Amino acid sequence: MRFRPYKPAGAEFSSDKQLKQAIKSILGYRPGNMHLYHLAFLHRSATQETLNGIRINNERLEFLGDAILDAVAADYLFKTFPTKDEGFLTEMRSKIVSRAMLNKLSQKMGIDQLIQLDGSSTGTFRSFKGDAFEALIGAIYLDKGYDFTRKIILDRIIRNYFNMDELVLQEVNFKSKIIEWAQREKRQTQFNVVDEVGSGYKKQYIVELWLDGEAIARGQDYSIKGAEQNAAEKSWQKINGENIDL
Amino acid sequence: MRFRPYKPAGAEFSSDKQLKQAIKSILGYRPGNMHLYHLAFLHRSATQETLNGIRINNERLEFLGDAILDAVAADYLFKTFPTKDEGFLTEMRSKIVSRAMLNKLSQKMGIDQLIQLDGSSTGTFRSFKGDAFEALIGAIYLDKGYDFTRKIILDRIIRNYFNMDELVLQEVNFKSKIIEWAQREKRQTQFNVVDEVGSGYKKQYIVELWLDGEAIARGQDYSIKGAEQNAAEKSWQKINGENIDL
Repeated sequence: MRFRPYKPAGAEFSSDKQLKQAIKSILGYRPGNMHLYHLAFLHRSATQETLNGIRINNERLEFLGDAILDAVAADYLFKTFPTKDEGFLTEMRSKIVSRAMLNKLSQKMGIDQLIQLDGSSTGTFRSFKGDAFEALIGAIYLDKGYDFTRKIILDRIIRNYFNMDELVLQEVNFKSKIIEWAQREKRQTQFNVVDEVGSGYKKQYIVELWLDGEAIARGQDYSIKGAEQNAAEKSWQKINGENIDL
Repeated sequence: MRFRPYKPAGAEFSSDKQLKQAIKSILGYRPGNMHLYHLAFLHRSATQETLNGIRINNERLEFLGDAILDAVAADYLFKTFPTKDEGFLTEMRSKIVSRAMLNKLSQKMGIDQLIQLDGSSTGTFRSFKGDAFEALIGAIYLDKGYDFTRKIILDRIIRNYFNMDELVLQEVNFKSKIIEWAQREKRQTQFNVVDEVGSGYKKQYIVELWLDGEAIARGQDYSIKGAEQNAAEKSWQKINGENIDL
């Protein structure tokens, strides 16, 4: 492997041995290259150190782990739901890898206990737990390869912490669906508040969803959020109902 | 492998042998499970056939291949640019996997010649070439596994068709950057046209970028697109400059 991670000074708040034991007890395997794991738990608030101008922290590993987790989840859903279409698969994946879900998972598994960060600022970092979770996936991938990482995610995470039947029933967020879909299809979306009707407690917002610069649906509600959901749901039906390549 | 793909009637417009030879000449390996490859090239316009209520086409494989391609690109960029931050890596990846790039690639490699679709409607399907390219990646993954697929993508695609130095210099689309970033961080973004100033040919638009329901920057330009780019660039600097967990 060409990649040689940098070992930051002061990153060893827990010794190699301690961290190795913690990972063994959480994920059931012996990690190899400990530099990677120390780096995975290094939040940017914990160090100002730089290397060639970039700060040393877990954000590059998070980028990598995010992609690996998405791939493993796609593979798992593809095989688990052989009779469901790609819209369903996309939606299920966005439920599994939502930031809220990953933060919770990180906490349940005790991964959050391993994170090094500037304790005075934990309140201002909303997603450091989920970020470290993804960085850990990136570290496992570099340390042990894809097939091993996939097995860990399936055996130790998905099968232990997720109930697919519950996830299927979880209420659908059409705005997220549209955004996910647009992301996947490389389309540009935009929610625009175009008008308000009524006033005082009767005031309603009108929101249009624009796709690649063209309005495709309009929603109305007492809150902007509600109007967006409404516009997104209508758009979703339009996109899927018409079954054309928008 | 648990997955058993369905072999649609009439999907064999080219025989197994022909398709096998085509893939061998394009990608340099002998495919195994040919059902997967036939399915990868089956556009939804080519068949109305369904299985358990879902239509048989390449869209599920596209979902899978999209994720595998993202993962391989993340791995490649992570290792190729060891001193670049995750913002740079995210941006480079979005250039590599853009729909326009994948459509072009599909054509250059001759993959588009293998697609089965209703010829009368090719004009209305803007991205069928890139979609089939992703579906093919999904088929390779199911047929041969991750490591093999990664090697094919690196040796046969990235090294042959991409010039990283040129890609680095390619002009940056800040709106895409923000959307990619928000996607990765599971944040909600929204570009709102909030005002217009001037009139006639001097009319300018004012666009606000909202992040999780709060305006973070404002752009102004003679076109909505320009105002959005302007708002996105300011937001990008804000997000990265302040270096806080927005």
